[in-house]
Amino acid sequence: MAKPGGLRIAAQALEAYAGALLQAGGFAPSHAAETAEMLVWANLRGIESHGVLRIPRYVEMVGLGLINPQAVVRQVAGRGAVCVLDADRAPGAVAMNAAGAKALGLARDHGVGWCVVRRMTHAGAVGIYAERIATAGLVAMVMTASKPLMIYHGARNEGVSTNPLAIAVPTADPAGPMIFDMSTAAVAAGKITAAKDAGRPIPLGWAVDAEGRETTDPAAVKAVLPMAGPKGTGLSLMIEVLASVLVGNPLLTVALRDGSEPGGNGIVVALDPSAFGAADAFPAGVSDLAAAIKALEPAAGGVVRLPGERGDGERRRRLVEGIPLAAGTAARLAALAVSLGVEVPDELT
Amino acid sequence: MAKPGGLRIAAQALEAYAGALLQAGGFAPSHAAETAEMLVWANLRGIESHGVLRIPRYVEMVGLGLINPQAVVRQVAGRGAVCVLDADRAPGAVAMNAAGAKALGLARDHGVGWCVVRRMTHAGAVGIYAERIATAGLVAMVMTASKPLMIYHGARNEGVSTNPLAIAVPTADPAGPMIFDMSTAAVAAGKITAAKDAGRPIPLGWAVDAEGRETTDPAAVKAVLPMAGPKGTGLSLMIEVLASVLVGNPLLTVALRDGSEPGGNGIVVALDPSAFGAADAFPAGVSDLAAAIKALEPAAGGVVRLPGERGDGERRRRLVEGIPLAAGTAARLAALAVSLGVEVPDELT
Repeated sequence: MAKPGGLRIAAQALEAYAGALLQAGGFAPSHAAETAEMLVWANLRGIESHGVLRIPRYVEMVGLGLINPQAVVRQVAGRGAVCVLDADRAPGAVAMNAAGAKALGLARDHGVGWCVVRRMTHAGAVGIYAERIATAGLVAMVMTASKPLMIYHGARNEGVSTNPLAIAVPTADPAGPMIFDMSTAAVAAGKITAAKDAGRPIPLGWAVDAEGRETTDPAAVKAVLPMAGPKGTGLSLMIEVLASVLVGNPLLTVALRDGSEPGGNGIVVALDPSAFGAADAFPAGVSDLAAAIKALEPAAGGVVRLPGERGDGERRRRLVEGIPLAAGTAARLAALAVSLGVEVPDELT
Repeated sequence: MAKPGGLRIAAQALEAYAGALLQAGGFAPSHAAETAEMLVWANLRGIESHGVLRIPRYVEMVGLGLINPQAVVRQVAGRGAVCVLDADRAPGAVAMNAAGAKALGLARDHGVGWCVVRRMTHAGAVGIYAERIATAGLVAMVMTASKPLMIYHGARNEGVSTNPLAIAVPTADPAGPMIFDMSTAAVAAGKITAAKDAGRPIPLGWAVDAEGRETTDPAAVKAVLPMAGPKGTGLSLMIEVLASVLVGNPLLTVALRDGSEPGGNGIVVALDPSAFGAADAFPAGVSDLAAAIKALEPAAGGVVRLPGERGDGERRRRLVEGIPLAAGTAARLAALAVSLGVEVPDELT
């Protein structure tokens, strides 16, 4: 049933489909809509691994009681510019959006807003939460914490999460904040999967096998290595302290002791440029810096890119041309749709 | 004149000597004392590259008008939990200490304090500014920005600083915060110097030569590479935005355009655990996490270390045994001492 050029669907149609699937899978309507928006945001930017392919697992997690699809996020602590929310195992997008809205409001009042949300589930592509704040003209910093996913430098097994960290700032282009989005891992898990699917070896330094030895065989990978060795795991450990230990919901300590699934925590920080004395000049200043970087002479064979540049380009392209979906992803979504009584869009059949 | 076992001096004596040299070199007494404390802090932790060997250059910078050794740090902007200081080219330690004190005070009032200090000079080993806040029971995050020092990923030449980032948190041991301290570079410049001195090659991935090619010859190194490629330079770029562009003192934009020496900026953020609802349990929670990490099985040939663990051990040892100084460092300090009319401690002759 493969169409010439593969399957392709408009972002809006994919978001409606994703929302319908999630809602049929038990998500409250607003929870389904917020989650669908985050997933399609990732697909638009070319981050397929965090896109709609997650939906079957999210619905499964509802069935397993891991996600509370009707959860109400509540504030449980805070003072001044700080707030702590409890997500009661809400979908990650719902929890992070609540934290973002809180941080933004606090930043307007106090110059900075620092909001931690605890007991949430998979946050997905965290760049979206940072982007939204930057689009409102503020600076955003977003971090999340989860169970051990990555080798701790010097250890044989996983000891820390791959903690995403996103920073977004407004630029002179109102529609285009600059979004830096990284994890603390040496490589995205998706690149290992891609190498495996393509039968290509992976470089040393990416991952280890079951014996804890670095491997070039993507099929033998047991766990991913940190970026820059002790820097990657040290940064991860400190994010765990800030996102988890500080709000009384330690994830790693619990998971390392008894292997239980600890859920997730997140941090959203917002800064209001007007508190820093240079508000009017700030977006133009960011664009000036971007221009100075883009003017650097490339290395032989190198390309000088700004943070988020590749994703921005992909997004612009996919908003026009539609989002390509792998046949396998479309098939898995269609199977779920049939089982839940949701109509499959024509574009994906 | 080399003594058996090399030169060694007690921290207190070295700090007094450093302070006397700086004061004779033009530093106001309190500026000299704050700078000497920071330098010896680095020597105690084994970070010789940021220790007292910097003094001749600092004194030279006074003569060149780069450091204002009598500068008064003043608040120029701020609102709520945010403050912006102007350092008028003060010594880095003076500027960062002022920012730290401000951030700590704001955090007590607002839960978080976010202080940026602009127009300072070399900040030195930034871990000390984070440590001081953590010793007071708060969480600290410290970043600094400076001129281009590192290859921008994909570019032939330096485009961003190596921006130090330190995060410190209290533990159950009141005297021992956990201090994470990294730069965004693939390697510390001191390791390249050490390889050069020892006639050893360096690994690919550390640095490039004048042609912009990765090199294994430490003598051919023109510039250091970022940690983890685009992650290192992306993080650096965002720190420049937060520390420099946001307060109207862009360093990279100016330096990349006209090659001028732009000075430095710094950020100190403090978080008061009592605003996060888990204050009493927090230091013990950090220690529990540390214990869980230390209990990880080491990889073959690996060692599991906590952030700052190596420096903590060095500090404990050197507080007892004294600080070893390279003969060349001692000789350069002695030459400066003679020229300034400062007495050289017996231990260093």
